[in-house]
Amino acid sequence: MKRLKKITLADIPYVGLGTPAGEWFRRYWMVVGATRDLYDIPQRVKVLGEELVLFRDQRGELGLIGNHCPHRGASLEYGDIEDGGIRCPYHGWLFNVHGQCLEMPAETRDSNFPRKVRHLSYPVQEQGGLIFAYLGPDQDNPPPLPKYKALADSAGQRSLEATRVYDYNWFNFIENGADPVHFSTLHRADPNDGTWRSWFFNYKDIPHFDAVETPYGMKVVSRKPGPTADTEYVDEKSFALPSILQIGDTEFTHFRQPREALSAGSHNAHIMFVTPNDDHSFTLFTVNHYTGSDPEFFQKLSPSRKIEAEAEKKPYDQRKYAPFRGNVRTEDIACQGTQPVLDRRKEQLATSDKGVILIRKIILNAIRSMQENRAPKGVLPAGRAHDVVSIDSFTGVRAKGLA
Amino acid sequence: MKRLKKITLADIPYVGLGTPAGEWFRRYWMVVGATRDLYDIPQRVKVLGEELVLFRDQRGELGLIGNHCPHRGASLEYGDIEDGGIRCPYHGWLFNVHGQCLEMPAETRDSNFPRKVRHLSYPVQEQGGLIFAYLGPDQDNPPPLPKYKALADSAGQRSLEATRVYDYNWFNFIENGADPVHFSTLHRADPNDGTWRSWFFNYKDIPHFDAVETPYGMKVVSRKPGPTADTEYVDEKSFALPSILQIGDTEFTHFRQPREALSAGSHNAHIMFVTPNDDHSFTLFTVNHYTGSDPEFFQKLSPSRKIEAEAEKKPYDQRKYAPFRGNVRTEDIACQGTQPVLDRRKEQLATSDKGVILIRKIILNAIRSMQENRAPKGVLPAGRAHDVVSIDSFTGVRAKGLA
Amino acid sequence: MKRLKKITLADIPYVGLGTPAGEWFRRYWMVVGATRDLYDIPQRVKVLGEELVLFRDQRGELGLIGNHCPHRGASLEYGDIEDGGIRCPYHGWLFNVHGQCLEMPAETRDSNFPRKVRHLSYPVQEQGGLIFAYLGPDQDNPPPLPKYKALADSAGQRSLEATRVYDYNWFNFIENGADPVHFSTLHRADPNDGTWRSWFFNYKDIPHFDAVETPYGMKVVSRKPGPTADTEYVDEKSFALPSILQIGDTEFTHFRQPREALSAGSHNAHIMFVTPNDDHSFTLFTVNHYTGSDPEFFQKLSPSRKIEAEAEKKPYDQRKYAPFRGNVRTEDIACQGTQPVLDRRKEQLATSDKGVILIRKIILNAIRSMQENRAPKGVLPAGRAHDVVSIDSFTGVRAKGLA
Repeated sequence: MKRLKKITLADIPYVGLGTPAGEWFRRYWMVVGATRDLYDIPQRVKVLGEELVLFRDQRGELGLIGNHCPHRGASLEYGDIEDGGIRCPYHGWLFNVHGQCLEMPAETRDSNFPRKVRHLSYPVQEQGGLIFAYLGPDQDNPPPLPKYKALADSAGQRSLEATRVYDYNWFNFIENGADPVHFSTLHRADPNDGTWRSWFFNYKDIPHFDAVETPYGMKVVSRKPGPTADTEYVDEKSFALPSILQIGDTEFTHFRQPREALSAGSHNAHIMFVTPNDDHSFTLFTVNHYTGSDPEFFQKLSPSRKIEAEAEKKPYDQRKYAPFRGNVRTEDIACQGTQPVLDRRKEQLATSDKGVILIRKIILNAIRSMQENRAPKGVLPAGRAHDVVSIDSFTGVRAKGLA
Repeated sequence: MKRLKKITLADIPYVGLGTPAGEWFRRYWMVVGATRDLYDIPQRVKVLGEELVLFRDQRGELGLIGNHCPHRGASLEYGDIEDGGIRCPYHGWLFNVHGQCLEMPAETRDSNFPRKVRHLSYPVQEQGGLIFAYLGPDQDNPPPLPKYKALADSAGQRSLEATRVYDYNWFNFIENGADPVHFSTLHRADPNDGTWRSWFFNYKDIPHFDAVETPYGMKVVSRKPGPTADTEYVDEKSFALPSILQIGDTEFTHFRQPREALSAGSHNAHIMFVTPNDDHSFTLFTVNHYTGSDPEFFQKLSPSRKIEAEAEKKPYDQRKYAPFRGNVRTEDIACQGTQPVLDRRKEQLATSDKGVILIRKIILNAIRSMQENRAPKGVLPAGRAHDVVSIDSFTGVRAKGLA
Repeated sequence: MKRLKKITLADIPYVGLGTPAGEWFRRYWMVVGATRDLYDIPQRVKVLGEELVLFRDQRGELGLIGNHCPHRGASLEYGDIEDGGIRCPYHGWLFNVHGQCLEMPAETRDSNFPRKVRHLSYPVQEQGGLIFAYLGPDQDNPPPLPKYKALADSAGQRSLEATRVYDYNWFNFIENGADPVHFSTLHRADPNDGTWRSWFFNYKDIPHFDAVETPYGMKVVSRKPGPTADTEYVDEKSFALPSILQIGDTEFTHFRQPREALSAGSHNAHIMFVTPNDDHSFTLFTVNHYTGSDPEFFQKLSPSRKIEAEAEKKPYDQRKYAPFRGNVRTEDIACQGTQPVLDRRKEQLATSDKGVILIRKIILNAIRSMQENRAPKGVLPAGRAHDVVSIDSFTGVRAKGLA
């Protein structure tokens, strides 16, 4: 019997082919592109260390195949989309979206060699403007792509943010989502500025929070007493396996409003799909799903998103990141981007790291399930293909004590 | 008896000191510079992984010596050419073109230490505007520098192109020369555009070709029926060991002319000398040798060479290389430059790769000859120093069935 | 008994934690910053391979602590200086200059966890505008910071030059200081230009020099006959352990004056503190200490320092460094920066390398002392904390035969 490698926290960040976390990730559908950003030219993508090329053939079908032509290795990124597939620029081999070779122009017309060549290809599906791929085993019979409510719900409005690439390990980013404390400290502002954010995430009075395992992963729920005795203010964020974060608010919605505005409840789910390119960088795909009543919600949001606080830079300030007080995105990048990778980081965890501790445990358990040939948490059995996966997130006032 | 390492294709790309291909390369004279580009300052060159400095002393003699001064390692690239040699900038040690130390200014005048210091140096010779060096064993008695017809022929006109440095393995470039199929596919154009190129290298009707071993290496000969029953259109390209390619045409001569113009035959040899700098980059020295009757051939060519087709770049096109349809140089770089190095490349070769298969075999045989202490193909015995090495290349119409 | 590693010259350049030279360096106070350049934001510094952050707290006390927060590794370079220390931006942990954690905002107020967390910190002291740190063992009882005359002397005027970072190994720079020969050759000029420099460091008549061990390190003394029978022209430069150079002149003081001007003697000490950042780069902190009678010495110097000879660059000159004849700083960088690191450098030393040979021997002896648990040369015992360390340097005329 093959002995399984005993995995530890040190394994989590590394996602290459054959690594424990890499094999685990390959059990899930992962976002590899956005419908809006895929044009009539091939798009090279790096996913879990694999060099691939994403394209849409002339009939509109999506393909995700190995970037290097199986003939002599030229990059298909420079291929031509034509004749029912993508044609390698070098010697003209033509592949369809399934990686099947259709033509080799320099071979005799009766050659059966094309038929025998099947290039690496992965199944691809679209949902809510994002393109998902499955890089795991049993490709002819992959698990169902979960119907994420924020993407699949026909109600509401959706807005896709700009795709972003970050130059540090994906897990630094993920942990941040299970850590509401950083919100009260890294993003701290004047506690008396009258905003919801400064009142709730007051760094002089950090809210209590719980970290709770869920069927899809986990959530962290922070609470403060509400305007009435039977209500409470709540901020609830979730992590869904393998690498999805969802929050109920962003700095652009309730964040800077007075707390009274929160009584109307939370109507925007901000869902973030993290795809490791390799061990050193990841791509972030973010969708906002608004289910409130304002038909011009995103148009109204747009101007406020353009204004991001920029502290004045002192002439002697030579640091890589600009001073960032008030710019949530820059603040997060500066902290996560300077953390060493988990296994090379010295740490002293405190009680307020309970979210971080739980997210690590859930991922380790999922990797172990995969190693034991059980479906890890978040991978759906075929029978549940039609379920809608609703990830919990909330910002606002609600009845006390909801789970 | 020392056992020889059993070499394979995986050894071909690697040229460092002590590697099989590195030792094999060192049996040949290699181009290390161009007369036109060597001025009154030292020129640092990297050849087969060795850091050297090329210079011409005040009497006009060429020297190629180790770049780091044998005294304390400062770079002779910043040396002064004076007093019969090159003087290290740091402590003034003076070396002649043979690496012999002539002066150490801070030692006593009667010191015999200068006499004892002989710095690494390699024999150098000029031919047809190029500077060749021999980095191999038995330096006092190197094999003769072959008289390449395109360089040594006193008839005809010569034109040296700009020296170019490429950032990928030299062998990706060389294989391309033994592969006429890429011409019909990578460089494909509208088959009806009326040019010789599109008619002959028609990707809907790729010409048959033969790959043939020759005394100096090999050639690939492509053929289509000629204007009369006893003639044929021919495109013939050669590879000469260790890393020379010669073609009978370029995109700037017959390439874009109507096929009728080809009847006048081929009068331009386009010879390319590839010098590996190391395993990751190489330098290309190219000479055109025209033996036709037009006294202004190169002047007339000049304007047409300045116009290279540039496809319009789409605003969403983020690829490293610009779209290249019609720009032969860019097309080639994009394909060769994206191929992984031979030993890390997955391949599936077809019958139309017979040129590539033959070039690999010829190089492997040459490396094995070297390992067995026989002169590898292309290294001339002393007795044949005066032979002219004529490399076959042709583009045009000629009598049927010539070898 | 633990066997000590037998060290060789090859060990000198490498300064990481646990290496022989790294451990030796950690027995000395080293310059890690300049008072003038430390503002109200944290300053990241790399010293002997360690990533640290230097800051001054609100009371004016200096701290040098590990750059990565011991909690979860975020960079303290982006911390806030407030509340009696530096606060990590990520979760608000607060550290004082001794690395003691003072606050963890998200823990309960009665938690004793902050008290238990002591972050890496090193003792820091200021002297003459420079900030020194001690990275060695026994931190509560470090050896005294030597009172370097050029920094600590209350007489005279001081001028701190711009801090410079170089991208090569620190020892290439240090050896240069023990090598007066390079002065006569690398910095050679027209011997008849009428300057002191060209007359004394005449490369046709290089002065004799002695290399002499001193209590603090060594010095090299070059001599030529003086204007009278009982005098001599002298250039004296010193090396003090671990990595200090001091010269009696620079190109900006006597260097370009006629030799007669030298009769007034040498009144400027140019002291250079070299701090290895790691094995590949170092930082140079330079102070001039003038003890002559001109109250406007540095103001007068200022314009002449702005004019540095720049040879005209030839259009075909592609070298990394510009032609440098007459620019002492550029000349030195070009030579030292192109030398391979000592252990990867091929060398053939001559009699005129006696300064270089002695500096290596003195450093090896000092490393061995450290290995044998004796204080290496240059580390003062506690009882000599109030001694002034006077490093010898001189340029000019003085009585013959002074040691």
